[in-house]
Amino acid sequence: MSTSLVTARPEEPVREVVKRMVEHSVGSVLIVDDEGRLAGIFTERDLARLVARGASLEEPVSKYMSRSPVTASPDEPLAKIATKMIEHWLRHIPVVDEQGRPLGVISIRDVLRVIASFESFP
Amino acid sequence: MSTSLVTARPEEPVREVVKRMVEHSVGSVLIVDDEGRLAGIFTERDLARLVARGASLEEPVSKYMSRSPVTASPDEPLAKIATKMIEHWLRHIPVVDEQGRPLGVISIRDVLRVIASFESFP
Repeated sequence: MSTSLVTARPEEPVREVVKRMVEHSVGSVLIVDDEGRLAGIFTERDLARLVARGASLEEPVSKYMSRSPVTASPDEPLAKIATKMIEHWLRHIPVVDEQGRPLGVISIRDVLRVIASFESFP
Repeated sequence: MSTSLVTARPEEPVREVVKRMVEHSVGSVLIVDDEGRLAGIFTERDLARLVARGASLEEPVSKYMSRSPVTASPDEPLAKIATKMIEHWLRHIPVVDEQGRPLGVISIRDVLRVIASFESFP
């Protein structure tokens, strides 16, 4: 998983969050509340949706983030996380501790990297 | 591969292309020229980049698309395409015929779907 932890606050404008996303070359930013707990996730897909609707990029990201995103625990097997990705059609799954504080993100790319390390592939 | 073929013309404004992307629930749009040949690809990632830069969404997509994208041929094995994705850090690879006309797109999700069908996973 990526542990670079690219985060933003719910009140930050969408454009600032997208800037951070691009700076860190990630496809999602974790939105955290005052207690450092995961409040939502904002992805490139959410950006495309709001642009398509003609929404302003200066609005707070909380308006467009996904709330209560699907998460994983640090000891969850990758196979189970990959299955969640397919079931829920997600490309990013935040990994959170027992208090709901983000530790990192598992992306579809992490899964692909594991696949690439297989000796054989279909 | 997805053969729904979501395409746009190079002169179309970014916002229109993003609308089409969202309507069809895809992460990339193929940009085709007058002869129906692949001229480039525009992805959610390209959108994030231009938003981060503060560029106008009314500008032609040709200004922000990736030109001469990495492509695959229809008879290329999925393993080879997955390898290309990892090497070039791509999530979408257009499949083109011998004349360079797009037939579809292989996305990282198509690869994941194959993985999910494996009997065992690490």
